[in-house]
Amino acid sequence: MTRLEQQMQFLMEVDKLKSVQRQTYLIHTHRQENDAEHSWHLAIMCMLLEEYSNAKIDKLRVMEMVLIHDIVEIDAGDTYAYDVKGNETKRERELQAAKRLFQMLPEDQEVWFWQLFNEFEEGKTPEAKFANSLDKIQPILLNDANGGISWREHGVLEKQIRDRNKNTPEGSETLWAYAEKRIAENVDKGNIQR
Amino acid sequence: MTRLEQQMQFLMEVDKLKSVQRQTYLIHTHRQENDAEHSWHLAIMCMLLEEYSNAKIDKLRVMEMVLIHDIVEIDAGDTYAYDVKGNETKRERELQAAKRLFQMLPEDQEVWFWQLFNEFEEGKTPEAKFANSLDKIQPILLNDANGGISWREHGVLEKQIRDRNKNTPEGSETLWAYAEKRIAENVDKGNIQR
Repeated sequence: MTRLEQQMQFLMEVDKLKSVQRQTYLIHTHRQENDAEHSWHLAIMCMLLEEYSNAKIDKLRVMEMVLIHDIVEIDAGDTYAYDVKGNETKRERELQAAKRLFQMLPEDQEVWFWQLFNEFEEGKTPEAKFANSLDKIQPILLNDANGGISWREHGVLEKQIRDRNKNTPEGSETLWAYAEKRIAENVDKGNIQR
Repeated sequence: MTRLEQQMQFLMEVDKLKSVQRQTYLIHTHRQENDAEHSWHLAIMCMLLEEYSNAKIDKLRVMEMVLIHDIVEIDAGDTYAYDVKGNETKRERELQAAKRLFQMLPEDQEVWFWQLFNEFEEGKTPEAKFANSLDKIQPILLNDANGGISWREHGVLEKQIRDRNKNTPEGSETLWAYAEKRIAENVDKGNIQR
């Protein structure tokens, strides 16, 4: 197989990301979001909200991270944020998925995708911190805008959201402050349980 | 309204892109693609296929262009490639949409989004040429991989595809050569009419 054929096979395989359903609902229509849509939304957020990153960042690197960070869910599935049992095995399932999927690529790009994926997962660089903050804040914004459907369906507690977001301010204090206000409002409305 | 509130309002408005349906079907499931998914796919293609651009390009610029190029379809709708009547009014409808949507942004970002949108539409820079080539080639790849559903549904002629793609080689001779082979195969299979 030529280099281009390898790349094309990978690109057709990742079409499956459009069928990986998340728990978050869209804003203007009653349907759950999928991972490809979510990844697109994060990239647009990165374009427009870069100025709120706590640290100076390489915007391209953040965009590349958010665009590929969920590809492993093609095999591993979306693990809901507050699914305790699912989250115990998440890491292992996602590593297996990354292995299968990334090895479809030419070797240099396989290495590069592992770097992007690992950097995002480790969350230590300014780019990874900002990417992770966007990834955590986007569903809060969607939930807030659609009346908290997913929070209500799952009976989510304020404490669960705060625990899950303990590192979110590391990417952007400003964006986290904005998200926190939305959380407080939804606690008041009863969409999030106290 | 603060700058951040303006940006957030825009970001929630563009959630609607996830509901703009295209004529192209997905590969692994029988459903039409939406614009947000399509835009995500183009950005991933840009990441992996940059090396095939005829000219050296600023990859970030191409990614930003493909991520936002269809946002105007939130108001203007997706105009099918081979819809002659729809294509007569497409430009005007899209300009009105860009006006309404981009003016939701802070002024500097409004100007920037107009620049990205116009650059893509004019197709003159190396970045815009490569972005346009990806935009044209992606549905060919999906159609080829799913058995040509959309080509068959619309009775598309080989000549129509060639006319529509007269500028596609300007972005990438290599990728166009790859797409051309897929077109020829689908003519042979009867998915595209001679």
